Amino acid sequence: MSNPTNPTWGLPWNFAGLDAEYSAFDSSRVAVLPVGYDFSTSYQGGTRWGPHAILTASRNMEVWDDELGATYQAGIHTLPELETTALGPTDMAKRVEEAFDWMYAAGKLPVMLGGEHSITAGAVRSALKKYPKLSVLQLDAHADMRDSYLDSPDSHACVMRRIREVCPASSVGIRSLSEEEAQYLKAHPAPMWSTRQFRALKGDWKAILDSLSDDVFITFDLDGLDPAYLPGTGTPEPGGLDWYEASDLIGAVAAKKRIVGFDVVELAPLPGNVASDFLAARMTYRMIGHMLKSQSNGAASGSAKSAAATGAR
Amino acid sequence: MSNPTNPTWGLPWNFAGLDAEYSAFDSSRVAVLPVGYDFSTSYQGGTRWGPHAILTASRNMEVWDDELGATYQAGIHTLPELETTALGPTDMAKRVEEAFDWMYAAGKLPVMLGGEHSITAGAVRSALKKYPKLSVLQLDAHADMRDSYLDSPDSHACVMRRIREVCPASSVGIRSLSEEEAQYLKAHPAPMWSTRQFRALKGDWKAILDSLSDDVFITFDLDGLDPAYLPGTGTPEPGGLDWYEASDLIGAVAAKKRIVGFDVVELAPLPGNVASDFLAARMTYRMIGHMLKSQSNGAASGSAKSAAATGAR
Amino acid sequence: MSNPTNPTWGLPWNFAGLDAEYSAFDSSRVAVLPVGYDFSTSYQGGTRWGPHAILTASRNMEVWDDELGATYQAGIHTLPELETTALGPTDMAKRVEEAFDWMYAAGKLPVMLGGEHSITAGAVRSALKKYPKLSVLQLDAHADMRDSYLDSPDSHACVMRRIREVCPASSVGIRSLSEEEAQYLKAHPAPMWSTRQFRALKGDWKAILDSLSDDVFITFDLDGLDPAYLPGTGTPEPGGLDWYEASDLIGAVAAKKRIVGFDVVELAPLPGNVASDFLAARMTYRMIGHMLKSQSNGAASGSAKSAAATGAR
Amino acid sequence: MSNPTNPTWGLPWNFAGLDAEYSAFDSSRVAVLPVGYDFSTSYQGGTRWGPHAILTASRNMEVWDDELGATYQAGIHTLPELETTALGPTDMAKRVEEAFDWMYAAGKLPVMLGGEHSITAGAVRSALKKYPKLSVLQLDAHADMRDSYLDSPDSHACVMRRIREVCPASSVGIRSLSEEEAQYLKAHPAPMWSTRQFRALKGDWKAILDSLSDDVFITFDLDGLDPAYLPGTGTPEPGGLDWYEASDLIGAVAAKKRIVGFDVVELAPLPGNVASDFLAARMTYRMIGHMLKSQSNGAASGSAKSAAATGAR
Amino acid sequence: MSNPTNPTWGLPWNFAGLDAEYSAFDSSRVAVLPVGYDFSTSYQGGTRWGPHAILTASRNMEVWDDELGATYQAGIHTLPELETTALGPTDMAKRVEEAFDWMYAAGKLPVMLGGEHSITAGAVRSALKKYPKLSVLQLDAHADMRDSYLDSPDSHACVMRRIREVCPASSVGIRSLSEEEAQYLKAHPAPMWSTRQFRALKGDWKAILDSLSDDVFITFDLDGLDPAYLPGTGTPEPGGLDWYEASDLIGAVAAKKRIVGFDVVELAPLPGNVASDFLAARMTYRMIGHMLKSQSNGAASGSAKSAAATGAR
Amino acid sequence: MSNPTNPTWGLPWNFAGLDAEYSAFDSSRVAVLPVGYDFSTSYQGGTRWGPHAILTASRNMEVWDDELGATYQAGIHTLPELETTALGPTDMAKRVEEAFDWMYAAGKLPVMLGGEHSITAGAVRSALKKYPKLSVLQLDAHADMRDSYLDSPDSHACVMRRIREVCPASSVGIRSLSEEEAQYLKAHPAPMWSTRQFRALKGDWKAILDSLSDDVFITFDLDGLDPAYLPGTGTPEPGGLDWYEASDLIGAVAAKKRIVGFDVVELAPLPGNVASDFLAARMTYRMIGHMLKSQSNGAASGSAKSAAATGAR
Repeated sequence: MSNPTNPTWGLPWNFAGLDAEYSAFDSSRVAVLPVGYDFSTSYQGGTRWGPHAILTASRNMEVWDDELGATYQAGIHTLPELETTALGPTDMAKRVEEAFDWMYAAGKLPVMLGGEHSITAGAVRSALKKYPKLSVLQLDAHADMRDSYLDSPDSHACVMRRIREVCPASSVGIRSLSEEEAQYLKAHPAPMWSTRQFRALKGDWKAILDSLSDDVFITFDLDGLDPAYLPGTGTPEPGGLDWYEASDLIGAVAAKKRIVGFDVVELAPLPGNVASDFLAARMTYRMIGHMLKSQSNGAASGSAKSAAATGAR
Repeated sequence: MSNPTNPTWGLPWNFAGLDAEYSAFDSSRVAVLPVGYDFSTSYQGGTRWGPHAILTASRNMEVWDDELGATYQAGIHTLPELETTALGPTDMAKRVEEAFDWMYAAGKLPVMLGGEHSITAGAVRSALKKYPKLSVLQLDAHADMRDSYLDSPDSHACVMRRIREVCPASSVGIRSLSEEEAQYLKAHPAPMWSTRQFRALKGDWKAILDSLSDDVFITFDLDGLDPAYLPGTGTPEPGGLDWYEASDLIGAVAAKKRIVGFDVVELAPLPGNVASDFLAARMTYRMIGHMLKSQSNGAASGSAKSAAATGAR
Repeated sequence: MSNPTNPTWGLPWNFAGLDAEYSAFDSSRVAVLPVGYDFSTSYQGGTRWGPHAILTASRNMEVWDDELGATYQAGIHTLPELETTALGPTDMAKRVEEAFDWMYAAGKLPVMLGGEHSITAGAVRSALKKYPKLSVLQLDAHADMRDSYLDSPDSHACVMRRIREVCPASSVGIRSLSEEEAQYLKAHPAPMWSTRQFRALKGDWKAILDSLSDDVFITFDLDGLDPAYLPGTGTPEPGGLDWYEASDLIGAVAAKKRIVGFDVVELAPLPGNVASDFLAARMTYRMIGHMLKSQSNGAASGSAKSAAATGAR
Repeated sequence: MSNPTNPTWGLPWNFAGLDAEYSAFDSSRVAVLPVGYDFSTSYQGGTRWGPHAILTASRNMEVWDDELGATYQAGIHTLPELETTALGPTDMAKRVEEAFDWMYAAGKLPVMLGGEHSITAGAVRSALKKYPKLSVLQLDAHADMRDSYLDSPDSHACVMRRIREVCPASSVGIRSLSEEEAQYLKAHPAPMWSTRQFRALKGDWKAILDSLSDDVFITFDLDGLDPAYLPGTGTPEPGGLDWYEASDLIGAVAAKKRIVGFDVVELAPLPGNVASDFLAARMTYRMIGHMLKSQSNGAASGSAKSAAATGAR
Repeated sequence: MSNPTNPTWGLPWNFAGLDAEYSAFDSSRVAVLPVGYDFSTSYQGGTRWGPHAILTASRNMEVWDDELGATYQAGIHTLPELETTALGPTDMAKRVEEAFDWMYAAGKLPVMLGGEHSITAGAVRSALKKYPKLSVLQLDAHADMRDSYLDSPDSHACVMRRIREVCPASSVGIRSLSEEEAQYLKAHPAPMWSTRQFRALKGDWKAILDSLSDDVFITFDLDGLDPAYLPGTGTPEPGGLDWYEASDLIGAVAAKKRIVGFDVVELAPLPGNVASDFLAARMTYRMIGHMLKSQSNGAASGSAKSAAATGAR
Repeated sequence: MSNPTNPTWGLPWNFAGLDAEYSAFDSSRVAVLPVGYDFSTSYQGGTRWGPHAILTASRNMEVWDDELGATYQAGIHTLPELETTALGPTDMAKRVEEAFDWMYAAGKLPVMLGGEHSITAGAVRSALKKYPKLSVLQLDAHADMRDSYLDSPDSHACVMRRIREVCPASSVGIRSLSEEEAQYLKAHPAPMWSTRQFRALKGDWKAILDSLSDDVFITFDLDGLDPAYLPGTGTPEPGGLDWYEASDLIGAVAAKKRIVGFDVVELAPLPGNVASDFLAARMTYRMIGHMLKSQSNGAASGSAKSAAATGAR
């Protein structure tokens, strides 16, 4: 047998299906962390498979972003899935926090793919250590402001209550609250725009931007979008944002602030309908592009400057 | 064995998952009647499971309505499913009429969950006995103005023809007619707005409101919504209303008229995609809220006053 | 309006759709406890909806068992769903244990519908308090004999390891083990039959019966069945039991032993295919019938005699 | 433009995708009548689409039957769908009866694709007019021996009760009865074999054959098969027949009796899983082959002889 | 047996379920060609079943177009499916070209139902022979301007590159390009509007119309629509057109130009959700209506005049 | 920030989710090649996603084979997906042949995951170069013995015709042939057992083994199994093999012959039902175990000996 030809390989298994040149750990500016944690006792489950579905869809997405261009050239490394724990959301959030610490220490801009929303608490705690003036922008249908849910203070239904205890947060798309949350928010007002209130701004988002500090972590619970666009989520609330509203708002944040990490959570893939997965992949990529462009904004806080500098390509 | 602890029970099985305090028959202002009647020879079936899906979804919905507040406090009792009959839609509509008579006699504000649209005829006939000046607001994609369909004058495709024979009716969202219906409506004009015509009103809905009497029964065939928002219906016609258009129109009616009952019909749940079910549950709850608020409107007609008074909490 | 006719109601919402005569708490010999606990980080989730799917299917099942007759006449009460906890499987199992204590104290024969397998530990611990000579019959594809899984000793993957620490157990249908489980079982042999070994018995199940004590709790992880018959489960392992093998084995146990409770767990309903749900409902009903007939077997152990006597109708 | 080439057409739209040579009405020995009647208030609907799914699947089936050979050469004509009526199953069965009268008058061997089981009553009544000594072989999970169901004596749940009032019938695969049916059958025994009883015959089916007259109409409710093989049906009862049991039994009947028509009913196609549809298509084709071979059996009864003679190719 | 009544047949199997009067080949102005070609190595397949799904849905659509009226009266003939070839897209496009030649020679206005987009090349080549001044309007999410894809210059991903080599083309809805396509289009500008650019026109579509010649072939890749409205396609890109934008643009083209044929491609039906199929059927019918009305526009080019004249009814 | 802890990673993305120790290329005895080629114009598509589904399922499978033990310890390396070509099955099979040449040259035992059956031709041609006395064992429902299909001699429907032109082949499970295939096989007999004939052997498989040479390539078209066990395939033919029949036959071959490579093809994953995927993963792993054990059988032919020796761990 003569010297055999090397096979023609298809795309590698990683976010966006990038060749080693653009996805090796050392040379990548961005790190994508899949966290298929799905300890959800509410309504529909399935976010266990959210990161898998985003990765699968992302490999069939054009890596040329039609609005932002060749985002991939900054390098996007996909990490293995973070192992889950059965000990409850408190422990899981700690594990996420450690993984974010590790990513920040490596000089990466972190992106987390969920998974249920409870994991965001760990991500924000880690970001806050690095960026002490951090604020959080939440896109979501639900306030997630309960004090406790199913015996846990760290349930997905409580995550923004916990986050607001440690740093400021602004919320867009909120259209579902429990009575207790409504009463709490009446007593403790927070910057929050329902879809209707957001649309009443007619694109003048200065109030939202002003409510945020210079260093912003974005947590995008995909049910902030209308279920028409993203039916694949656990509690699909009618009356949500559309693709352009959500991606343009993020673009506006990126134009003025520095995005220091983000997550895209609560994708629960539907059987036989990949539209939600594909949107989530495109949104993640769009957000990576905006995050990268935003790095030149704002004064550095804490130790971010050097890491960002050394991590940049 | 020592005295055992009482178990921690989850939500009860009823609309909105309400505790007995807010769902017992006697103390409830509203009665929800599930009618899973699905004698449909057209296209996709499945409305048999519509009421079940709405109830299931409603238990995972926040009972705090983000626009109307604590609607549940008026009391919402969920009745058992009405047994169906195999003798055809004429007999089934009579059974529905009797059930509405029974609900009205008990002083309840009736809500029917369908099921195919043919059942509305019975509901309206009953309401008309109680409210002689009744008019009907139909949200729908289809005119339902055939004189007969598959040999029956009481098919879902004829229901508004039958209703218009006994009381005035106005229709919004209509974008699908047969040639016979189009010709009939040309000869016998009825107040009817397609989605395009509705949008041309730019929110000035006076003409719609003026076409209705003070006592209004609303029949919401969910295919009046665009299939983007509600794909789970038997004949999903493109070009329909969105969540805000439909719920705001109902709110506008409630602000000026008295809503004396309503139905939400033609939900045909999709396998593995609950977005339609959830929207239908939220819409039903929103409509209950509007109906309750509307009770203070208009002069009482017929025997409604005393019943409403005694039934209120 | 004349005195209205009472509506013709459909079947009530409970296991088998039984009228009050056969489903009221006080007069029922059997209590069915739905436990939609689904804290599963492995493969496919969805057991959250298992109890709901079994109840839904059971209402369309004939209550005349073609092999056992009018089982329902003993009375079968369906309890509300047990509320879940987000604090991990250890806490959840305790909650199940308390609920079983409460059912036993009320003189009921307990039936639990799962939900993931971890909940069985609590059920068995409660049964063991009442029946000190209890043994457990496990039908399952997996040994569930890990010492710990995802940091928890009470994960579904460990449940039979925990149970075997407190009482004897025999297992049928096992065809999937981890290497650690295989090594542990080599060192600590347990009565265990793979499908192949079970079939090699050619219906002579004396060895299985002999391995059990007089008072038997049956835990039926539905993946013990072949996925051909029950595809709706989280980890569908090929090579399992069929309907007759499983139900006949349970009948054989009932003929010789006293069944003092059982569970049917790990149903993860498939979208758009109810065959698994329906089988699970029929199997639950068959097992109730066998359990009831088995009550006349065996010497009473502990305090069971009086409770069984008083609870019987 | 020069004279254009005729396009290369794919298979025509008819049962088995047969060219005109083997599917034209006049030259075909067999006529296939699709009846998508689905007036079902029980459990899962969807038989409306059964005939469509069988036709679709049949076009992808090899027309060479691996056990019976070139069945298609006798000619198989596919009729349009019979229009349904909304007036209830009594009227629909009459419409089916007329269609069978019409097919028999045209000298065709009739095959009906359902649709719910109620339609069989009309088919049998027509066959009985032509073959006065007719008997019926039912393959089914359910006895269908209720006297009335949902107010109708002609519901699918009553169809064999009605048929047994006019001609003898034998049943195989029955494993689900209501208590009333069980009592009725105790008082009025009928030849009936459950799956278990059928298997106990170990292939000696003389008793079944002896219970039938020479002219046999077969009604195959597909839920007679185990849901493992055919999950796509409205009430999938565990413990049913397999492919070989059912097709071999029909072969045995064909070897001794004359099959004078048959139906295949209660296919309710599953979303995204065509295995049931494909089996139903193969079974229909296998039964056509057996029916054709059986034509040489038995003495002619009534006017069948001449029609069969002239209709044969 | 007396003279049997003719059965009451349901709708025939063809586009829109038209009776022979409006669907016979000779008398029909329009011919619909189903081409279920699905040689797709990208992401989700399934366009093989697109034409079947459109035909199935179209039979349940009202043939009275609520905006255009009795379109069917011009006659719409449905051809058999074009047989596919396994030799690759180059050969398949040639087969499509021949079929279009044959339809044009028969004086029909051709409509093709796909199937993947590669088949459009053949349709356009044929139309160009008949209408030498042809231009193409593409509605699509993707530019389809690659020079080669998976070794083939005739892949679906290259089809507009090939078409632009032979005639002008304008594109609307484009929001996904590869980097190579972006660079090529920078060097070789083409009239192309993304959804965002299209909306920026605020309904003034003069620039789009001016970019087209008088004779227009429309190729509608359904993924040009937003996945909210049409999730059933292989690569559902967020941010697309809605029903009114797409159908109104086509209406605007029809008002000024002569539409000489069109295709509707890339429908990949979803399991258990017919909304996409139904929209595709309605869109096809709407486009037929517009095409028919447009026939009175523009000067005839080439040999079209006489054919159109003789083919008209 | 102190030195961060390394995150706890989940299983890697490869067949069986093996750590580097057991999956690195150099140290692995077995190489798994995913080939998601799906150029299928027949019935249901979807084999494009077969390899992906097998890999996904395999990560949730126990790597301890309950019958063969610690198979993974030989090392199993998962290659990237082979890129597909749009030039037709002839070109694709050549690409597969080159990839097998490359795997054999690297001393690996090759395993291919399909994808449609046409790819097997390339695998067998490569194996034949290495093992000149090769024979092929086909498990399949279809003969695949057409001479040409859809213009191509290398279609999936022709693959065994092509293979039998170059080496002997035996077939088990065959129950679907075209008339042409039946006639060809009558004229050119081949060792072939239908399911019925296979079962008639009652486990005495000597005739099958005798029909094979010492070096065997196994091609397992999963539709050889009954659709009850594996519904997720393009043409699910009733009457197939079960799990034990298929895996035991392969075990019997492994006990006597040397298995020099194999493929598992035609998995077309179902939406929302992973049972087929999981079975395919378990079967692949079982076959790897048997292949490894079989390496000690038979005399070496050609250059295999040294490669096998050096490749073994």
